[in-house]
Amino acid sequence: MAVYTDVDSGELATFLAHYELGEVRAFKGIAEGVENSNFYLSTQKGEYILTLFEKRVNANDLPYFMDLMTHLSAKKLPVPLPQKNKEGEVLGQLCGKNAVLVDFLQGVSVRKPSIAHCKQLGAHLAKMHLALADFEPKRANTMQIQDWRQLLETLSLDDARLPANTLAYALEMQSKIEKEWPQKLPLGTVHGDLFPNNVLFLKDRLSGLIDFYFSAYDMLSFDLAICLNAWCFEQDASYNLTKGQALLNAYTQIRPLTLAEKDAFPTLCRGAAMRFLSTRLVDFVSVPQGAIVKPHDPNEYYKKLQFHADIVSPRAYGLNG
Amino acid sequence: MAVYTDVDSGELATFLAHYELGEVRAFKGIAEGVENSNFYLSTQKGEYILTLFEKRVNANDLPYFMDLMTHLSAKKLPVPLPQKNKEGEVLGQLCGKNAVLVDFLQGVSVRKPSIAHCKQLGAHLAKMHLALADFEPKRANTMQIQDWRQLLETLSLDDARLPANTLAYALEMQSKIEKEWPQKLPLGTVHGDLFPNNVLFLKDRLSGLIDFYFSAYDMLSFDLAICLNAWCFEQDASYNLTKGQALLNAYTQIRPLTLAEKDAFPTLCRGAAMRFLSTRLVDFVSVPQGAIVKPHDPNEYYKKLQFHADIVSPRAYGLNG
Repeated sequence: MAVYTDVDSGELATFLAHYELGEVRAFKGIAEGVENSNFYLSTQKGEYILTLFEKRVNANDLPYFMDLMTHLSAKKLPVPLPQKNKEGEVLGQLCGKNAVLVDFLQGVSVRKPSIAHCKQLGAHLAKMHLALADFEPKRANTMQIQDWRQLLETLSLDDARLPANTLAYALEMQSKIEKEWPQKLPLGTVHGDLFPNNVLFLKDRLSGLIDFYFSAYDMLSFDLAICLNAWCFEQDASYNLTKGQALLNAYTQIRPLTLAEKDAFPTLCRGAAMRFLSTRLVDFVSVPQGAIVKPHDPNEYYKKLQFHADIVSPRAYGLNG
Repeated sequence: MAVYTDVDSGELATFLAHYELGEVRAFKGIAEGVENSNFYLSTQKGEYILTLFEKRVNANDLPYFMDLMTHLSAKKLPVPLPQKNKEGEVLGQLCGKNAVLVDFLQGVSVRKPSIAHCKQLGAHLAKMHLALADFEPKRANTMQIQDWRQLLETLSLDDARLPANTLAYALEMQSKIEKEWPQKLPLGTVHGDLFPNNVLFLKDRLSGLIDFYFSAYDMLSFDLAICLNAWCFEQDASYNLTKGQALLNAYTQIRPLTLAEKDAFPTLCRGAAMRFLSTRLVDFVSVPQGAIVKPHDPNEYYKKLQFHADIVSPRAYGLNG
């Protein structure tokens, strides 16, 4: 995580002239978000996060993301609210890039979530899904099942930089997942990347959901499977059933799963593991050796995929049948 | 600039148990300082910067740096004050590394300093030098004239990655600087790295001097020459005499230069340019291609060195004889 664009105080002043925030009292690049540059901004009026969109985010999608955060914020979900400037716009230009100012949310992200954190996450994920039921814009998910295969096929089985056997195993599992992939599960707007680093807590209370730049229209239960992968495994990639139950129960109390969603859950978990294994394998070979910003370890999701490989019953995850 | 160590909220809580700061309300890695990991920390009691010392800073030097900041803060210079924990210590351990908590200073660093900024900087540099006159600990400067030569000699004239002719020119200039280098100028404790990114302003008022991890006992006027190089050139490496005069006049009004310091000033400016050219050339060839954190451009200090090359009179910088 790094800041990719250096913003001078003069350029900042020009940008902030479009807002009425008073004098700047602090401005610091923060190591948050992998795709964009983020800055902590404190002014006489309050505290904000300034995000500069780097090239990996499609500029055409930005209004969608802004509308999504505004929608959720209006429904009292703890989501950063894009600030309107004097012209009534939420997107501006800074250093030749699209930029948005959102309010600063209190809280700290946790690297080792507790049972209480998993429970809070499950409840907020369900609330978020329900709150987005009347959100009309639809963005296609660019990280769907066919995209994982495309990513895997850019890699070579002979690539010595890849962990041994991982790619062969991933390709085999990808075929299995494709055969069993569900087609008619309930759809809605999903976060798509709700990892612990995108969630803030004040002690055990969830205080922020951030980084909506993978949000899209997809299967709601796939979002839940992504969270289960990201929140309910220990550092050694062992599944923590208690945390899984906490997450799943909290979610289903607010949005019960259909029978079809439950039946498909093991497959969705395999798919969620594959979605991150495929991108991490590609990142792993594209980041230069010795780079200060290290790629995520693909092995973590390889092990998670192996865990999910042969699970047939949703009960194995602690999901009540 | 990046955060090198990932601090979990649990590890943070263990560290903060040694302090009485109340509940944590925000904790974010910030892109500040090249050598260490820094975090913005907000608690019920106030705002702080948490610094984790990475391997490039010698642990034995840390008490010196802590004492230096505490000394300057006590003398009302706007310097981060290391916070004492319940045991009365300012240095603690976090994630197996030395760590310090300092108070958060308001202000914004400027990339393109104005005349007013240069004037403020000059005055504060002189005040800092005077305030350190009774600071007893002495740390040897690890970036002295013989160190620049050592760095240059690690490089090869045949290295195609280096900008053409730069190394040959640097070696020639190094010999010139060695011949004319002054021996008996006033000594004291210097900052050694007072670049614009290490100085904070609230509008035109200087509100913070930070990052003392190159501080050492050296020639005071060499610190001034470093600042002139870092603050008084435009982006195209042309010297801005008005800014130079603002810096030098503000400094000398508070700490007048001796005749010997004035006479040596062109040499000190060449040396200051060489000090940064030598480290930047070495960094330039050691950072992997394509790394996200880019090394500084050595060409900037090559051009500055060329500007200083033939200057004989301190008047050329706007320094009154």
